[in-house]
Amino acid sequence: MKCFVTGGAGFVGSNLVDRLLSMEHDVAVYDNFSTGLAGFLVNAKESPKFHLINDDILNLESLIQAMKGCDFVFHLAANADVRFGINHPEKDLWQNTIATFNVLEAMRANGIKKIAFSSSGSIYGEARIIPTPENAPFPLQTSMYGASKLACEGIIEAYCEGFGFQAWIFRFVSILGERYTHGHVYDFYKQLLENPNKLLVLGNGHQKKSYLYIQDCLDAMLFSIEKFKDNVNILNLGTNEYCQVNESINWITAHLGLKPKLKYSGGERGWVGDNPFIFLDTTKINSAGWKPKLSIKDSVIRTLQFLQDNRWVMDKRR
Amino acid sequence: MKCFVTGGAGFVGSNLVDRLLSMEHDVAVYDNFSTGLAGFLVNAKESPKFHLINDDILNLESLIQAMKGCDFVFHLAANADVRFGINHPEKDLWQNTIATFNVLEAMRANGIKKIAFSSSGSIYGEARIIPTPENAPFPLQTSMYGASKLACEGIIEAYCEGFGFQAWIFRFVSILGERYTHGHVYDFYKQLLENPNKLLVLGNGHQKKSYLYIQDCLDAMLFSIEKFKDNVNILNLGTNEYCQVNESINWITAHLGLKPKLKYSGGERGWVGDNPFIFLDTTKINSAGWKPKLSIKDSVIRTLQFLQDNRWVMDKRR
Repeated sequence: MKCFVTGGAGFVGSNLVDRLLSMEHDVAVYDNFSTGLAGFLVNAKESPKFHLINDDILNLESLIQAMKGCDFVFHLAANADVRFGINHPEKDLWQNTIATFNVLEAMRANGIKKIAFSSSGSIYGEARIIPTPENAPFPLQTSMYGASKLACEGIIEAYCEGFGFQAWIFRFVSILGERYTHGHVYDFYKQLLENPNKLLVLGNGHQKKSYLYIQDCLDAMLFSIEKFKDNVNILNLGTNEYCQVNESINWITAHLGLKPKLKYSGGERGWVGDNPFIFLDTTKINSAGWKPKLSIKDSVIRTLQFLQDNRWVMDKRR
Repeated sequence: MKCFVTGGAGFVGSNLVDRLLSMEHDVAVYDNFSTGLAGFLVNAKESPKFHLINDDILNLESLIQAMKGCDFVFHLAANADVRFGINHPEKDLWQNTIATFNVLEAMRANGIKKIAFSSSGSIYGEARIIPTPENAPFPLQTSMYGASKLACEGIIEAYCEGFGFQAWIFRFVSILGERYTHGHVYDFYKQLLENPNKLLVLGNGHQKKSYLYIQDCLDAMLFSIEKFKDNVNILNLGTNEYCQVNESINWITAHLGLKPKLKYSGGERGWVGDNPFIFLDTTKINSAGWKPKLSIKDSVIRTLQFLQDNRWVMDKRR
């Protein structure tokens, strides 16, 4: 199979690329390196089955050309800066919603009909049912990120109905692990590198979040594509546990052997549009036979270990 | 109050403009006349409180200028050609989703925070719960129109959370009445003018649809804006009844005194993405005290009477 991976130089993307190559698939990566890193594709580049296109999804003509001959699209490219939504609301709309529309149009132009899409638990807004199942009543959107991802889902579904596409829509919790260069583990580690005695925490530290380890996430995606065969397959991906930010801080500081003074910005939310409790009901995929292998704590530690072993990543992000 | 009405030369828009002027409000209409008709604003133009801007919502700079000094935005402009979604999927995305984003950005630039938005029962896709309440689990989107309107709702909600906006989101059934120049009543009447002996019906005629009379719709919108004061107010608007296409055909042909031969294109759906049963649960607004005055049958007859008295409208639509 020839796979097309948008955002293939990013965190989830580059790990997926390595996995697909190890499964003997041909892989074309399309990435504009706005947040992706060439360093994540060092192994992939050794493979004769790997092909890289450095361009922007908003360039539809280039995207159509690049997709030629592919069988399956993993659309992972996105603006993942959830917390900056209100500073530049147009970014989520363009890089998520319009970008996804372009991916679908490029698929249509090339006669490709299968797509896996990385949506987000953010689309549940502040859910009234926790853990939140796939068929929960949709609550109000609280961030441009969530709104833009929900828009992507709707457009993908309309393409399934109108053009006979088949889609796997994955509503992720936050993913952790090797090559993760966003989020609280990254932020905290970076702060502690600069000053091991002080840690600024957004919100009150009681925000409850659910995380999934990257390799578990890839297992779940590939498992679902094999197992679920509806025209539209919507799946929550996460673990059956959650943690408070404060717990994670304890794991991180214990692992690093530090005892920093904690300073909280205060409030239930880390930022405007932050969701103080994300926890997804993963009964659907669990019942079909998939279970994660790593706990949240282990995922946090693996992320830390990766950052400790790959300080170059932090230099690239300055 | 100075009201800004996008799509103010359209069916719902121009009727709203007349109503707002009769309530002594100042009204600025922004319309590109792609489907709106100058003839619908003949009365409005007599008022010194009326102001018209002929431009496109996709022209953000013009929109920002035009909105200056307004207090409340009624955003009604949209691509309403639901059934042509698969011929030009980009149309719904641009004219509905991006257009709505521009309206919100223009409001933000002008410090305007109140918006009423015409969404659609189409966002419920093929609902599993009928009649469908506002908090139904969101089913899959089946049309680009529904997907693009759902995207608008999400973005509006994100602006309420992020920028302190207040919104009234109205999920309409199809609206009928004076100045309606789309949909089955219009299509059937036009066909029967050309050939009174034959009528082509899309689908099998058993599609069940719910309709609301335009003046009832305006009553409901203005009632809701007075009555519901949450940051985000989502309201289904419709009647407590539905009809089959075949019933409506009987009302139309009886009113016209015709007995055409009916020819059905067949199938449960009139077109790809058509929904064979739309019926909204309007308990929320009914409980607050609003009820429609006209039945679906009366709305169909009023629409016909308007078309009979205003044949110029059909010439404009050729």
